[in-house]
Amino acid sequence: MESTKFVLTEEEMPKSWYNINPDLPSPPAPILHPATKEPVEPAFLEVLFPKRFVAEAMSMERFIEIPEPVLDIYRTWRPTPLVRARRLEKALDTPAHIYYKYEGASPVGSHKANTALVQAFYGKEEGLDGFTTETGAGQWGSALSMACNFFDLECHVYMVRVSYDLKPYRRVLMHAYGAEVFPSPTDSTEFGRQVLAETPDTPGSLGIAISEAVEAAVKSNGRLKYSLGSVLNPVLMHQTIIGQEAIKQFEKAGEYPDVVIGCVGGGSNFGGFSFPFYYQNKVNGYNTRILAVEPQACPTLTRGLYAFDYGDTAKMAPIVKMHTLGHSFIPPAIHAGGLRYHGMAPHICALYDHNFIEAIATPQVGTFEAAIQFMQTEGILPAPESAHAIKAAIDEALVCKEEGVCKVIAFNLSGHGHFDLSSYQAYLQGDLEDYDYPEDKIKAAISQLPEIPEAIRLM
Amino acid sequence: MESTKFVLTEEEMPKSWYNINPDLPSPPAPILHPATKEPVEPAFLEVLFPKRFVAEAMSMERFIEIPEPVLDIYRTWRPTPLVRARRLEKALDTPAHIYYKYEGASPVGSHKANTALVQAFYGKEEGLDGFTTETGAGQWGSALSMACNFFDLECHVYMVRVSYDLKPYRRVLMHAYGAEVFPSPTDSTEFGRQVLAETPDTPGSLGIAISEAVEAAVKSNGRLKYSLGSVLNPVLMHQTIIGQEAIKQFEKAGEYPDVVIGCVGGGSNFGGFSFPFYYQNKVNGYNTRILAVEPQACPTLTRGLYAFDYGDTAKMAPIVKMHTLGHSFIPPAIHAGGLRYHGMAPHICALYDHNFIEAIATPQVGTFEAAIQFMQTEGILPAPESAHAIKAAIDEALVCKEEGVCKVIAFNLSGHGHFDLSSYQAYLQGDLEDYDYPEDKIKAAISQLPEIPEAIRLM
Repeated sequence: MESTKFVLTEEEMPKSWYNINPDLPSPPAPILHPATKEPVEPAFLEVLFPKRFVAEAMSMERFIEIPEPVLDIYRTWRPTPLVRARRLEKALDTPAHIYYKYEGASPVGSHKANTALVQAFYGKEEGLDGFTTETGAGQWGSALSMACNFFDLECHVYMVRVSYDLKPYRRVLMHAYGAEVFPSPTDSTEFGRQVLAETPDTPGSLGIAISEAVEAAVKSNGRLKYSLGSVLNPVLMHQTIIGQEAIKQFEKAGEYPDVVIGCVGGGSNFGGFSFPFYYQNKVNGYNTRILAVEPQACPTLTRGLYAFDYGDTAKMAPIVKMHTLGHSFIPPAIHAGGLRYHGMAPHICALYDHNFIEAIATPQVGTFEAAIQFMQTEGILPAPESAHAIKAAIDEALVCKEEGVCKVIAFNLSGHGHFDLSSYQAYLQGDLEDYDYPEDKIKAAISQLPEIPEAIRLM
Repeated sequence: MESTKFVLTEEEMPKSWYNINPDLPSPPAPILHPATKEPVEPAFLEVLFPKRFVAEAMSMERFIEIPEPVLDIYRTWRPTPLVRARRLEKALDTPAHIYYKYEGASPVGSHKANTALVQAFYGKEEGLDGFTTETGAGQWGSALSMACNFFDLECHVYMVRVSYDLKPYRRVLMHAYGAEVFPSPTDSTEFGRQVLAETPDTPGSLGIAISEAVEAAVKSNGRLKYSLGSVLNPVLMHQTIIGQEAIKQFEKAGEYPDVVIGCVGGGSNFGGFSFPFYYQNKVNGYNTRILAVEPQACPTLTRGLYAFDYGDTAKMAPIVKMHTLGHSFIPPAIHAGGLRYHGMAPHICALYDHNFIEAIATPQVGTFEAAIQFMQTEGILPAPESAHAIKAAIDEALVCKEEGVCKVIAFNLSGHGHFDLSSYQAYLQGDLEDYDYPEDKIKAAISQLPEIPEAIRLM
């Protein structure tokens, strides 16, 4: 009998992260100060982030040890399983072998816990009192709440007001971990007060919440720093434990993936899953395809511009070179809330720009359809974000069927959908629609990028 | 470094269940017909349940093979992990070693999937079109929905109306698995119409929903049968994979539990976890204590009578000998909805009656307090039902601390609380209260037990 699930013992869990910095096809573009547009010094970033985190952003070490206090907590649920989706294969009648790596096994139900624990540990080590952060639907906010709780730190979460009001359960989860959760915009930050004065009834946005969290950290006299759940390379690097575990698990399966797939919003689960496979391609001459999947409603890689842009709406976060739809771009309220970021992790953009990875965009309704097919064959209700990876994996498997070839397809199931049942309800009632963005709207958003001096652009 | 988590490979997964029938301290009391009060023939039960299920209820085989199609699906998430709760131990400052078996790892988030799959398989094997069942909050209904979906069977779930209206997410989950969910009482059954005629605004009850599900099965001309998620021995037996896995995992841990703990409503997770340890006590002379934990609001073992009683409110289900608060007993609307059954699995009652197991009842508020302490140390949000086991485990660990002894404490974490966040919200807002049932109310409920001829009572 062939196996279904490939588990690793604690002893087999990777002890270091893979840092892609030394293996990028070209040196990373500089990070710019949002006001001066000059390359920033580490000291600027250290006001926002823990020093060890900033050092990781600059590091050219290929493998960086995972701190033991973090590994210690990982052991409660990691290594996560790699599962062969045999019933899905059968339903599709495909010769392909489909595998998924299941990050929903974490206590907060997604991969976000992996980096949250590291950042909280660095903050504790540095003597901080706690962290500020933003959250939309609450996936990242609950991961950081759990992490801060474990390291006895304060956690101040600025939660987009409309989610705070309409999706109370994630908020309850954060409270139960001991976090303070504020509906953003609040009247406790200058930027929040400014927004409220102009638009008292605003539902809030992720951009506003980021700006409030950054402001609260900067004005805390060093008591608090800011924690980010995606985009920056240290965050992606903390997630590489996913791909590295998967590689060990494929050894046990006696197979190796022809294609690895992940959904992309800011890029952390995709980078964490795929970068170790990119490294294997590079050093071992493998030819694994690497496929990023984004929603058609927020097509950053497939239709955005590769240019310098602000990380947030209020232009308080650093400027980075990335694929972007413009910092003022506000995507429609699709149900994959975690994939609504206007930009993309710069390291993923660099690989995409050099054709080391592929990207596609999938429509909302077809993505939910794929989610239900996965659930009815494999049992697990996926997060709407992760469903984008499922949709692409199913499409790849159907191509295999058509062509009569047996490929090995692997995707990262980055989270479960237990907190997304209102989205599934909308889908089952036929209330969802697709959003294909008109070209002129994208052009308009992109036209608002900051002007960067040529000397810096070409650095 | 000592390990935290003990995993088994698929190959190490138990291949058979432990059937406690041959090892009961006294022969099981007969199952009686609800109308005639005479011992029932298998043929009567086979109208309700699949033949293979009825045969299991009578079987004196000590070990019964788990069918391969069921094992095949188990492999997606089983064996479930046994985890040492090191951070909880540290927080309690106890010398005790605390372990939990995590059944929340199943796609529906609880141990209920274990028996649902078996019953669905037996139904498929027998050529049924599907099953009817009842559900309160939806834990059991979603497990059977998933199972019927895998075996391509219809699933008709009678969901207590108040839950159907107020807790829509479990209903959405069942829909997504393809089940039909009816708010009970419905006008599609005779009993439902009768209830609606008398009390049009009734919120429904589990007793009514059971009666409707039974009626719908009986009147389906053999097309559908009824599926039950607890109480009967085959159900408990299907859950013994939990305890058997745990015993193998304790071998890897190099320890053996001094006490095993489970929450009890109908008894299935408790029986499934503890019966294999009872067998070890019996054959190997071990002295593991076995502790059942129930809510003070529904104190079936600790304050109920050991007598013959109906399994449901409408007196349509068979009469069994069990600890009972009376079939007319309606416990308060506590948040551990799965522990509100008036009776208890007869096999657990037999062991309790012979002092092979202990039982305690815990108050609601203190139980939620224990749940939060567990969540803040171990990360996982427990189901309110499972929190009863946590409360008892913590209390045992505190006794160890007081006495300065290092005992090994193991409990079954039967499910996660992702669908119970409204209950946690109520707790965090200080809205929960304890319910300690007045003696006269219990006496009144117990006074309504059916009269059973002495000849049968003494069989």
